[in-house]
Amino acid sequence: MNYKSFFDNALNRLHEERRYRVFADLERIAGRFPVTIWHAPEGPREIIVWCSNDYLGMGQHPKVVGAMVEAATRMGTGAGGTRNISGTNHPLVELENELADLHGKESALIFTSGYVSNQTGISTLAKLIPNVLILSDSYNHNSMIEGVRQSGCEKKIFRHNDLAHLEQLLQEAGPDRPKLILFESIYSMDADIAPIGAICDLAEKYGAMTYIDEVHAVGMYGKRGAGVSERDGVMHRIDVIEGTLGKAFGCFGGYIAASHSVCDAVRSYAPGFIFTTALPPAVCAAAAASIRHLKTSQWERDRHQERVARVKAVLTASGLPVMHSDTHIVPIAVGDPEKCKAASDMLLTEHGIYIQPINYPTVPKGTERLRVTPSPYHDDQMIDALAAALIDVWEKLGMPLNRALAAE
Amino acid sequence: MNYKSFFDNALNRLHEERRYRVFADLERIAGRFPVTIWHAPEGPREIIVWCSNDYLGMGQHPKVVGAMVEAATRMGTGAGGTRNISGTNHPLVELENELADLHGKESALIFTSGYVSNQTGISTLAKLIPNVLILSDSYNHNSMIEGVRQSGCEKKIFRHNDLAHLEQLLQEAGPDRPKLILFESIYSMDADIAPIGAICDLAEKYGAMTYIDEVHAVGMYGKRGAGVSERDGVMHRIDVIEGTLGKAFGCFGGYIAASHSVCDAVRSYAPGFIFTTALPPAVCAAAAASIRHLKTSQWERDRHQERVARVKAVLTASGLPVMHSDTHIVPIAVGDPEKCKAASDMLLTEHGIYIQPINYPTVPKGTERLRVTPSPYHDDQMIDALAAALIDVWEKLGMPLNRALAAE
Ligand SMILES: Cc1ncc(COP(=O)(O)O)c(C=O)c1O
Ligand SMILES: Cc1ncc(COP(=O)(O)O)c(C=O)c1O
Repeated sequence: MNYKSFFDNALNRLHEERRYRVFADLERIAGRFPVTIWHAPEGPREIIVWCSNDYLGMGQHPKVVGAMVEAATRMGTGAGGTRNISGTNHPLVELENELADLHGKESALIFTSGYVSNQTGISTLAKLIPNVLILSDSYNHNSMIEGVRQSGCEKKIFRHNDLAHLEQLLQEAGPDRPKLILFESIYSMDADIAPIGAICDLAEKYGAMTYIDEVHAVGMYGKRGAGVSERDGVMHRIDVIEGTLGKAFGCFGGYIAASHSVCDAVRSYAPGFIFTTALPPAVCAAAAASIRHLKTSQWERDRHQERVARVKAVLTASGLPVMHSDTHIVPIAVGDPEKCKAASDMLLTEHGIYIQPINYPTVPKGTERLRVTPSPYHDDQMIDALAAALIDVWEKLGMPLNRALAAE
Repeated sequence: MNYKSFFDNALNRLHEERRYRVFADLERIAGRFPVTIWHAPEGPREIIVWCSNDYLGMGQHPKVVGAMVEAATRMGTGAGGTRNISGTNHPLVELENELADLHGKESALIFTSGYVSNQTGISTLAKLIPNVLILSDSYNHNSMIEGVRQSGCEKKIFRHNDLAHLEQLLQEAGPDRPKLILFESIYSMDADIAPIGAICDLAEKYGAMTYIDEVHAVGMYGKRGAGVSERDGVMHRIDVIEGTLGKAFGCFGGYIAASHSVCDAVRSYAPGFIFTTALPPAVCAAAAASIRHLKTSQWERDRHQERVARVKAVLTASGLPVMHSDTHIVPIAVGDPEKCKAASDMLLTEHGIYIQPINYPTVPKGTERLRVTPSPYHDDQMIDALAAALIDVWEKLGMPLNRALAAE
C-alpha cells in the first residue's frame, strides 16, 4: 500500500489550487516590536511585522516579560502534570481569579489555547444540556465549528450578524427547547462587530443561553480590557465569555469565564481540559501580569485606536482598497489568491514588510485580502513606508488604485 | 429555562458517584524538586510530590530554565500569531528540527499539546487516506480516541496489546484496504509496554500504516531519549511517532515526527494546527534545550531507573500491593474510589506526601489506584518516608498488607 501517495496527492491539490502555504521563520526582538528578524532562505534580515495578533505589543512589555522570567526562575518551565495530577500550579489559580474578575463572572477556567476552549468547552456545555439546539453564527471560527460538531447536538446556522434570522430560528425552536447561541464579538477576518446587546435581548426573550468568543477583543476594548461586551455595557448579560491569552495579552492559552456551575461542569467533564498537561506557571504569570496591567492602563488601548485610525486614513488616502472596518483590523481587498500571495511576497522581499496573505479557506474565494494589524508601536514613518510599499506593489501587479483619492 | 440546573445536576452525579475532583494548588520550587509548596486551605506548606509527570525533573534543569529565561528576555512572551500569520518563530523551527533528528525522521510538526497532536493529527491523517480502517488499541488515551472519532472513519478496537486479535482484524480488512494502527508505547495507568516490533511485523505483513504515542516514554527510554521504539531498535519502522514536551522534557506542547509528506499534509490540513496561536518562543527554546541535553546525558535516565527500582523494592518489601510494572510508573492497587481518595487525602494532610488518586473514568471501576512516579531527585529518605506513610494509611483505612513480605 502506497500511503505516501495519499499525502502527496493531498499536497498536490493545494499546489494546484495555489493554496499551499509557506510559513515565514521569524525571530521577535523584545523591546523593538514590530521590528523582527526574518530568517529568509538567503539569511536573516530585519523586517517590520504588520500582521501580528500581539495587537498591543504586550508580548514585549517589561512587566509581562519580567513576570515570565521571574516565574520560570522560581518555579521552572513546566507544570509537570494534568490539572488533576499535580499540574494545577499557583500562578494558574491566580490567573483564573484574575480572569473571573476581569469579566465580572464567578469563575474562570483555563485551557491550553483559545482553540481548545471553544472546541472542548462548547462540545461539553452542549452535551450537558439535554436536547439543546445550537444556534451558531455563519462566520464563527473553526474552533467553534469543531466544538459544535464534536458535541453531536443539533445545530442551526444563522446568517452572519443577522438578528432577524436568529430570531426566526429561536422562535421556530419553541419556548421549551433549550437553546445555545454561539457568536463572536469581533470577526477578525471581516473586522465587523456583533450586535451583542440585541443578541442578549433575543436570548432573554426566547430563553436562550449565550456564549461569546471575545478572542479578538479582550485587552483592547472596554474600560478594563474585558472586550466589546464590556464596552457595550452588556457583559453581565452573557452567560459564557471565551477568550485567549495569545493575542492582545501577548502570551498563550485560552479560557472561559462564567458562573461557578458552568465552569465547574466543564472542568469536570471536558476531555480536552482533563486529559492534557496544564499551562506552565511562567506562561500563567506572564498572562496575569498582562491582564493586570491592561485593567488599569488606558495608554495601549488609546494609542492602538489612534494608530489604527491613522493607518486607515493614510492607506485610504493612498487610493488603496481598504475594506470597511469597525475594529482595529484593517483588511485590504485583493480578490485573487495569486495576486494576494504575490503582493505579500513582494512586500516582504522588496520592502521588508511582512503581511501574510489571507486566502481561502480562511476567507471565501474571491475575497482574498491582506490583513493589516497596526499596534501602538507602529510609528508614523512605518505607516508612510507601508503606504508607499503597497502603492508600489499595487502598481507592479496592475491592480487598481483609487486615483481620485490618491491624487489628493 | 433553568440552564443552571443542567450543570448542577451534572455535578451532583459526580458527587454521588464520588468522582468529584478537587485540584491541589501547587507551587513548584525550581532547584528543590520534588519539594513543592502546597497552597492548602489553611495556608501554604511544603510537601513532597510523588505523582509528577515531570518524570526526570527537567522542568527545573538549569539549562532548560536558562533557555526559557534567555528566550523570553530576548524575544518576549508570545508567538503573536498562528503558524501561518506571523507565529512561526525561530525557536519553534529549531525545535522541529531537533525533534526530527531525535526520532530519525525527515520532519516534525509541533502542536499546542500532546492532546492536540493526537486529536487533530490522527483525524487529519485518517481523513486523507481514502476508505481507511483504523485499528486502535483498547487502552488508547482519550486524545487518540477523540482523534479517531473526529475523523469519522471506520474503526475497530483490538484488545489491549493483543497481537492475535490485531492480526485477525488486519486479515479481515483484506489486503486492498488502507489500514492505520494506533497504539501507545507505554500505557501510563497500567505501566505496561506494547510489543512494538511485533506490531511493526504485522503492519508490514498486512500493509498497514503505524502511529505510536510515545508520550510517556520520550526523554526516558532509548540511547538518546527517543522512546521505547528507539530502545527496541524499531523506531525506523514506525510511520508516525507522537510525543509531548510536557512530561519528561519538562515543558509544554506536543508533536509528531514522520516523513516530509505526512508532516506537510498534516501541517496543511489539520484545523487544530492551523487555527491556533503558535507555541511561545521561550517554551520552544526550553524544550529544545531539554531534548538536546537528554540526547547525550545518560545520568537522568540511569538514576531514574535506579530510583524506580528502589521504590518498587521498598514498597513491595513493605507489603504494599504494588502492581506489576514494566516501566518507571509504580501503581499501587486500592480497588475502591472512596478509599483511594481517603488515602490520598491522608497522605497529603498527615504526611505531606502528594499522590493523586486515580479513579474512574481514568481507570475502570474496581481498579482504583495510587500512581507513584519516582524521579531522579527522590532520595532514599523520601522513599523510606513514603513507605512508612503508605503503611500508616493502609493500616488506618483497614486495607490489607502482605505481612509475609512486610515482616522481613
Ligand atoms: C475567533 C477565534 N477564536 C479562537 C481562536 C483560537 O485562539 P488561540 O489562538 O488561543 O487558540 C482564534 C484564532 O487563533 C480566533 O480567531
Ligand atoms: C498517552 C497520552 N497521550 C497524550 C497525552 C496528552 O499530552 P499533553 O499532556 O502534552 O497534552 C497524555 C496525557 O497528558 C497521555 O497520557
